[in-house]
Amino acid sequence: MKQRDYSFTFGQALSQVHILEQFPLPATILEDSGAIPSQGILLVCDTNTEYIAKKIRGSQNLPLCVLECGEAGKCWTSIERIITAAKSAGLGRDGLFVGIGGGVITDMTSFAASVYMRGARLCLISTTLLGMVDAAVGGKTGFDLLGIKNLAGTFFPASHIYMPMDALKTLPSGEWKSGMAELIKTAVLDSAICNEVSRAETQVSLDKLKALGPVSIANGIPSALGELIERAVLVKGRIVEADPKEQGTERALLNLGHTFGHALEAAAGLGKLSHGEAVAWGMVRSCELGLALGITPENRAREITEIIAAYDYETAAPHPAMKDAAFFMQALAGDKKKKAGKLTFVVPDAQRAVLVSADRIEPQFLEQIIKGELQH
Amino acid sequence: MKQRDYSFTFGQALSQVHILEQFPLPATILEDSGAIPSQGILLVCDTNTEYIAKKIRGSQNLPLCVLECGEAGKCWTSIERIITAAKSAGLGRDGLFVGIGGGVITDMTSFAASVYMRGARLCLISTTLLGMVDAAVGGKTGFDLLGIKNLAGTFFPASHIYMPMDALKTLPSGEWKSGMAELIKTAVLDSAICNEVSRAETQVSLDKLKALGPVSIANGIPSALGELIERAVLVKGRIVEADPKEQGTERALLNLGHTFGHALEAAAGLGKLSHGEAVAWGMVRSCELGLALGITPENRAREITEIIAAYDYETAAPHPAMKDAAFFMQALAGDKKKKAGKLTFVVPDAQRAVLVSADRIEPQFLEQIIKGELQH
Ligand SMILES: NC(=O)c1ccc[n+]([C@@H]2O[C@H](COP(=O)([O-])OP(=O)(O)OC[C@H]3O[C@@H](n4cnc5c(N)ncnc54)[C@H](O)[C@@H]3O)[C@@H](O)[C@H]2O)c1
Ligand SMILES: NC(=O)c1ccc[n+]([C@@H]2O[C@H](COP(=O)([O-])OP(=O)(O)OC[C@H]3O[C@@H](n4cnc5c(N)ncnc54)[C@H](O)[C@@H]3O)[C@@H](O)[C@H]2O)c1
Repeated sequence: MKQRDYSFTFGQALSQVHILEQFPLPATILEDSGAIPSQGILLVCDTNTEYIAKKIRGSQNLPLCVLECGEAGKCWTSIERIITAAKSAGLGRDGLFVGIGGGVITDMTSFAASVYMRGARLCLISTTLLGMVDAAVGGKTGFDLLGIKNLAGTFFPASHIYMPMDALKTLPSGEWKSGMAELIKTAVLDSAICNEVSRAETQVSLDKLKALGPVSIANGIPSALGELIERAVLVKGRIVEADPKEQGTERALLNLGHTFGHALEAAAGLGKLSHGEAVAWGMVRSCELGLALGITPENRAREITEIIAAYDYETAAPHPAMKDAAFFMQALAGDKKKKAGKLTFVVPDAQRAVLVSADRIEPQFLEQIIKGELQH
Repeated sequence: MKQRDYSFTFGQALSQVHILEQFPLPATILEDSGAIPSQGILLVCDTNTEYIAKKIRGSQNLPLCVLECGEAGKCWTSIERIITAAKSAGLGRDGLFVGIGGGVITDMTSFAASVYMRGARLCLISTTLLGMVDAAVGGKTGFDLLGIKNLAGTFFPASHIYMPMDALKTLPSGEWKSGMAELIKTAVLDSAICNEVSRAETQVSLDKLKALGPVSIANGIPSALGELIERAVLVKGRIVEADPKEQGTERALLNLGHTFGHALEAAAGLGKLSHGEAVAWGMVRSCELGLALGITPENRAREITEIIAAYDYETAAPHPAMKDAAFFMQALAGDKKKKAGKLTFVVPDAQRAVLVSADRIEPQFLEQIIKGELQH
């Protein structure tokens, strides 16, 4: 695979994404970031990506901060550990943080870099499918607080984001499933927005996803997957460029499936379902909502639902893990993403997707959707 | 006193400062901020400014978060308390944080607002002289970590900053002295930059400071002081507008007296000297440095030193609280403000001040200055 590079402008910040086969060399990372060696550099990883950090470090004695893996460690204590390690490593205001891992590590390293002396330098090496197609690009940073996901965070795009396909060789199957839902989401949102790249073959179309099928990496990373990742980066990047801080409606489209999904995650008991499973199920509900509102054409709803089923996600309502519809409805009402106090759904239309305010929808009607009691 | 309003543009953000006699009403704060009541509002204060928060709140039942007073409480635990109170008060992404106090409270409330759901709304009510002439304007937020002042922080200008002169009526004498040093600093920096306001009488000239003399509030806040504060706001605001994130050299001018001052604070033992006392002493050292380098004219150095003495600050070197010159030199070398690893001094010139890189200066020479061993 030839290396592919993309540049994005998120507000005032320039972010470059490098999709490549192998792990980047320390010299490349340092040079790309324009870091001043005397200002210090710190690698951050978790116990599962430590092997990657060590491979990258090679024989160089770069300081390394290894955190526990998993969402449970996405908390202030870990942020403080990163900052403490940075201080010990002598990082100054122009010091460089390098986050190496999935969304948990890249979100936290980015947050730490964004507040360290009011903002240091930042590169990311994304090592999960979810990280590549979603978490690592776009500048959202954060950690969980008071039991609420990403309650604290900043906008702070990394200057360089590396996506080495080699990292995916060790990704556990559950993590593939988690990332694939966001790739399907991207396929639904993909549109004329990215036409600047006329390489039609790289469009994340639903057809192409269908052709790929559940990923088997027994024989290495399929090149079709690399192309889909590349396209997903472009779609997310262009959407964020149009609305970096989610003040308008454009970036909110990326929440397709997430309003239903988050409520399902909460209703199932946090940690019971993977984010991807919840989002996939949420996309099917969005299609049903869109169908009922006359926004989603029937064949489009069918196509999206079929792909989600083909990737082995639960599509039926009620979801087997959902214990209590009343609790689900309550979680829905408390969704952080609501704008100016108003809950919004993202619903596929013929080409892409549109925002629909919950004002337009009766709560009883939503309850029928999540209970699978809707009469078609 | 008639209310005075100033608008500043710090990067992408608009900040409005209101210098007024009495405390603002809740209705005014809400209306100015454009806050949506259903998105929630939280007042934050410390035990010394609680009385102000309660006066502002009046008979309205607005949620209030009261923190311990003093720099020792400028830590993550307090930030977490603010965020927890905000969540309990039901603040959404468009919720409004109102920080009521000196620099410690406004820095921390601003930080909490900047990370709450990646950025909520923010107003400040500045209640100390130091807050008004320095801390409340310009968007720097932060808290102390690992024993280092403001090691964690963001740039997040408040949309509205109120400076009620009435607040100063209860300010303890030590706090006057702390703020006055920054006012003297402003007088040194004041220049053509603010000529847009042709009301020459409000310029923070050294002469005017001399005429004011150590503040006595026995008969209320002198109107001359209100005018000096107003002018200081304008000087700081315009300097920050020219260089909001201190990436150039303009904002760095505000560190006049601070390089020597911070090192003195550390060498004296943190908390022994007030920031103002340390900065005042540091400005005298900067004058000596400037004199020796041929940058500061003799009469200017004398004038600045005289004013600092007139306000009862220590001007002689070595400072009585400085225990160890070697430790001082070490603290100097570790200064957070060094740019790209290089230590910088701000030195008064004939009109304003300029930056001087430590490269140009022999360490032995600096040591002579802080020990008072320089031969004139
Ligand atoms: N910032 C954003 O815009 C954004 C967008 C979506 C999700 N997120 C965040 O991302 C997080 C989820 O991302 P994630 O699924 O990548 O989480 P993760 O970082 O926890 O990674 C998932 C698991 O895979 C392991 N792992 C990572 N790379 C590996 C590799 N190459 N080989 C073997 N194991 C590996 C990790 O240790 C972890 O156990 C959530 O916290 C979510 O809030 C952020
Ligand atoms: N953000 C910036 O640009 C900036 C600039 C300069 C200083 N600072 C920060 O500001 C802090 C110092 O500011 P400060 O001196 O205002 O600190 P402070 O908030 O601790 O106030 C000083 C003391 O006065 C009390 N107080 C405040 N208002 C009062 C009133 N009206 N009546 C009676 N007592 C009152 C406080 O409770 C405290 O005990 C430092 O932490 C410093 O880092 C920030």
